[in-house]
Amino acid sequence: MTGTPASSVLFPRVAFIGIGLIGSSLARAMRQHGLVGTIACHTSSDGSMEHAKELGVVDEVYRSAAEAVRGADLVVLAVPIGANAACAEAMASGLKPGAIVTDVGSVKQSVIRDVSPFLPDSVAFVPGHPLAGTEHSGPDAGFAELFISRWCILTPPPGTPEAAVARVRALWEAVGSKVDVMEPGHHDRVLAITSHLPHLIAYTIVGTADDLASDAKQEVIKYSASGFRDFTRIAASDPTMWRDIFLNNREAVLEIVQRFTEDLTALQRAIRWGEGEVLFDLFTRTRAIRRGIIDQGQAYGSGIAPPPVPEKVE
Amino acid sequence: MTGTPASSVLFPRVAFIGIGLIGSSLARAMRQHGLVGTIACHTSSDGSMEHAKELGVVDEVYRSAAEAVRGADLVVLAVPIGANAACAEAMASGLKPGAIVTDVGSVKQSVIRDVSPFLPDSVAFVPGHPLAGTEHSGPDAGFAELFISRWCILTPPPGTPEAAVARVRALWEAVGSKVDVMEPGHHDRVLAITSHLPHLIAYTIVGTADDLASDAKQEVIKYSASGFRDFTRIAASDPTMWRDIFLNNREAVLEIVQRFTEDLTALQRAIRWGEGEVLFDLFTRTRAIRRGIIDQGQAYGSGIAPPPVPEKVE
Repeated sequence: MTGTPASSVLFPRVAFIGIGLIGSSLARAMRQHGLVGTIACHTSSDGSMEHAKELGVVDEVYRSAAEAVRGADLVVLAVPIGANAACAEAMASGLKPGAIVTDVGSVKQSVIRDVSPFLPDSVAFVPGHPLAGTEHSGPDAGFAELFISRWCILTPPPGTPEAAVARVRALWEAVGSKVDVMEPGHHDRVLAITSHLPHLIAYTIVGTADDLASDAKQEVIKYSASGFRDFTRIAASDPTMWRDIFLNNREAVLEIVQRFTEDLTALQRAIRWGEGEVLFDLFTRTRAIRRGIIDQGQAYGSGIAPPPVPEKVE
Repeated sequence: MTGTPASSVLFPRVAFIGIGLIGSSLARAMRQHGLVGTIACHTSSDGSMEHAKELGVVDEVYRSAAEAVRGADLVVLAVPIGANAACAEAMASGLKPGAIVTDVGSVKQSVIRDVSPFLPDSVAFVPGHPLAGTEHSGPDAGFAELFISRWCILTPPPGTPEAAVARVRALWEAVGSKVDVMEPGHHDRVLAITSHLPHLIAYTIVGTADDLASDAKQEVIKYSASGFRDFTRIAASDPTMWRDIFLNNREAVLEIVQRFTEDLTALQRAIRWGEGEVLFDLFTRTRAIRRGIIDQGQAYGSGIAPPPVPEKVE
């Protein structure tokens, strides 16, 4: 791109494998901040690739992953995590020595398991997970501001060169994120509670409502104020991505679902037996947690000020 | 109030029993639209009563419910539903013939069970439920715009004079709500799925997270992007109000919790057995439901336009 200050370029050549919501947002953000010279791309859908090029999100498209990554300083795996092994195998022969491979998947242990075996020793692997997204999919849905004020967690396996981690950290900070580094298994357990379980619950409750008689369904939609409505937004997340997340973070998800089910059954019992104090004590405790989150500046996301009119809760 | 056009006044004298978030919002809205002459109030907390008077939310305060409702054309019960029976009993002797009693409780069958026995035949009872609220409580939290573009469901028992129902409908429409009338049991079953179950689930998951080791808890808060964060907002709802809702809508809530738990267990099993198609099929179905809600204009609440930057979902 003309006019890109040489000092801001972090990676002269970047290759994206996959160019959906996350990939195209990162590509746009890298352009916007002058962090990259040339962006190459390969994805399984020819249509998506061409469209991304038409949009100006990427410069060059390739029908093979190995060609796409040739000469790349940074390779970003941005496919559904179930496709990682195949992509890593396909691209490996094209990687140049000293290249950095990173990803954006929502589970880390399985990504390391799937990708590491195919990478030459001369290539550094810095797995990452930007905690960002919307209910939409595809290269049209991406936007450069997606990662601003969001966390990005990096989970380099033992032995990853510090310099490579530092460069990937610099990338995410330059597009507006805060960066933390943690052990991959720990990441998977934390995300199981903050993200995977909430999504599973949202999917479930929307499905339960959908199974009601059809006239009841219409009313559920009609009166779906905040509460149920929030669940529908979460349950509109990309089906492929989320199928892969649950299948690839099985142990942590099953553990936390089990805890959740035990707790819900205890409440169900308290309701059946009219044990008001049990309910009241829990509801008081959870209100305090909300106050803690507000204090941490997390309540409204992105560090923005609370809306002037309080958010409505049904 | 000086300058209130006589033609807009629906009820010359209104008495509020309870003056929390909902009550004080309705009082403010009635004032703003010139729907009322004098507002009287009784609530169990002397401090709240005096404060509401200082704020100008109400004109007169009374230490006894019977005195508060004397001469009132409309009485609004706006207390936690567990207090309805005691309030109805306390106020009954003060009600004038032809008065209308209404309420704002989130469950209707139990309210009718608790209140009806104490009302003289000369008084009309039009139970109501405005589908509106925030995570905050008390007379300071109220605001006149709370009910704009929200649904209000009225559930008059058989035999309620149509004229009384029409007057209460006119009130809610004047403060900006859309009004539907339905059978009380039907209301309770619909709200069990659109509101009560989502709240119960939110309370549960926040409690499950809170039971984790304390260092895990800090990280849950830190990385609680949208998803878990939405649940914490819902789980900050008033503990008293929600304890009473679950205890008073027991059958409908237990029925829907049972369905939900069966569905969640089925998904848990699919995850354990790696049945990706089961997951994918559900997630595709729920995405279609979201599209249906967007089409109905319910996706972002209040009929407002979608935010310019897509809502972030972790």
